[in-house]
Amino acid sequence: MSTSSAGSGGADRAAQLLVDVSGLQSAVERFVRARDWDQFHSPKNLVMALTGEAGELSEIFQWLTEEASHAVARDPATARAVRDELADVLIYLVRLAAVLDVDLDEAVATKLRANAQRYPVEQVRGSARKQRER
Amino acid sequence: MSTSSAGSGGADRAAQLLVDVSGLQSAVERFVRARDWDQFHSPKNLVMALTGEAGELSEIFQWLTEEASHAVARDPATARAVRDELADVLIYLVRLAAVLDVDLDEAVATKLRANAQRYPVEQVRGSARKQRER
Amino acid sequence: MSTSSAGSGGADRAAQLLVDVSGLQSAVERFVRARDWDQFHSPKNLVMALTGEAGELSEIFQWLTEEASHAVARDPATARAVRDELADVLIYLVRLAAVLDVDLDEAVATKLRANAQRYPVEQVRGSARKQRER
Amino acid sequence: MSTSSAGSGGADRAAQLLVDVSGLQSAVERFVRARDWDQFHSPKNLVMALTGEAGELSEIFQWLTEEASHAVARDPATARAVRDELADVLIYLVRLAAVLDVDLDEAVATKLRANAQRYPVEQVRGSARKQRER
Repeated sequence: MSTSSAGSGGADRAAQLLVDVSGLQSAVERFVRARDWDQFHSPKNLVMALTGEAGELSEIFQWLTEEASHAVARDPATARAVRDELADVLIYLVRLAAVLDVDLDEAVATKLRANAQRYPVEQVRGSARKQRER
Repeated sequence: MSTSSAGSGGADRAAQLLVDVSGLQSAVERFVRARDWDQFHSPKNLVMALTGEAGELSEIFQWLTEEASHAVARDPATARAVRDELADVLIYLVRLAAVLDVDLDEAVATKLRANAQRYPVEQVRGSARKQRER
Repeated sequence: MSTSSAGSGGADRAAQLLVDVSGLQSAVERFVRARDWDQFHSPKNLVMALTGEAGELSEIFQWLTEEASHAVARDPATARAVRDELADVLIYLVRLAAVLDVDLDEAVATKLRANAQRYPVEQVRGSARKQRER
Repeated sequence: MSTSSAGSGGADRAAQLLVDVSGLQSAVERFVRARDWDQFHSPKNLVMALTGEAGELSEIFQWLTEEASHAVARDPATARAVRDELADVLIYLVRLAAVLDVDLDEAVATKLRANAQRYPVEQVRGSARKQRER
């Protein structure tokens, strides 16, 4: 890093991060504190909440063919529902990571490295079976 | 930030985002392309994969009391398992958003605004019931 | 039915039931008691366990096309895995019903009647959309 | 079977079964056929539907303490919601088994035997950890 980059360390760091969820983490914390909902946000409860939201996402897609699932955003109401459920999953995931003091950027970096070792390109290329047999 | 920060607009933007998952999104796309796995990543399939990972998270916490769930990171092996599952959920969520062309930052911003309206502080403070009755 | 059927009331009742899970319920109760696992079987925990098993089922099917999902039993190992996961979901479901004192036969009978009213044949015939919009 | 048991064969068989879901299976099949919904009931889709219903069950319990989860039936509206979700999970499970031609009674019998071997009473008595480490 050149000396001229003094003060822009944030930009450099952000550029290197896989994910930066700090803004959402703070916003959710303020939201929860204002409502005194910390008491309900045990990791166990948040896992259930995340599971529930994943289930709602599932319900949107359950009767769609794979092909139709690609076009789910064409209907504006469904598109909004999908965005809302993705947001709900992400909000609970970020909240869960905060409560458990898990650094999501470190977690995904570690997982991607492990996945790269587990699924060598030459062995799994084009094979769903290999992907499934984890 | 000094006026000499021209070119560090990324930092400014990052500072305003609730989430920035662009690094992970690119990394996952490279990973998937190299293995020719795009063909399996229909939105429908990715929703199932996300649900499966949420289920694995659930299994870690299912027999723990809420109190014990707070201390789940004390056992190093369990802590690693939790980080891995959180990473898996996030990886599939980010992949799903990419495939559906959903901007997760916009999605969570919209959802947080809706939640703030839905759960006015003065009406829901300290009440799990209100939170549940969504 | 003739009057000579006295004593075969069990058969009559079984014939009219939609589901009879009493044998499994007793077997699971013996299994749990012998291991002193009642203490872990709160409804909340059992819901998480059921969710976890549903997630494992999801993982088996996530990369399969719908067409391939019909043929999942052709591979003996996968067929065994599917049967095991279906069994796990059913075991936790029956245990949950027992702990909550829910009569599953009454529950499904009530639900089927409600579904019949909710989805009149003439209005929903052949339409996944109607089925989805519950 | 001796001739003296004529007419009570159903009772004998029922007495030996762990689960008998044949009534529900037939009722659901009629329901589905009448609506021409077979086309949507691929195993893959049914797994997603089951997962979605498990998620709804999760949402009912997510903010409850374990203790409160035992008393969930005290509030009539919540009790009805719980029964409905249990029914939905069971209906999709039975439908999935039918479509996959899985005998649920055989599946749970096999699984219970495997569980008995996997968790010997003397080794796991009173331990959630052993139960978790499957």
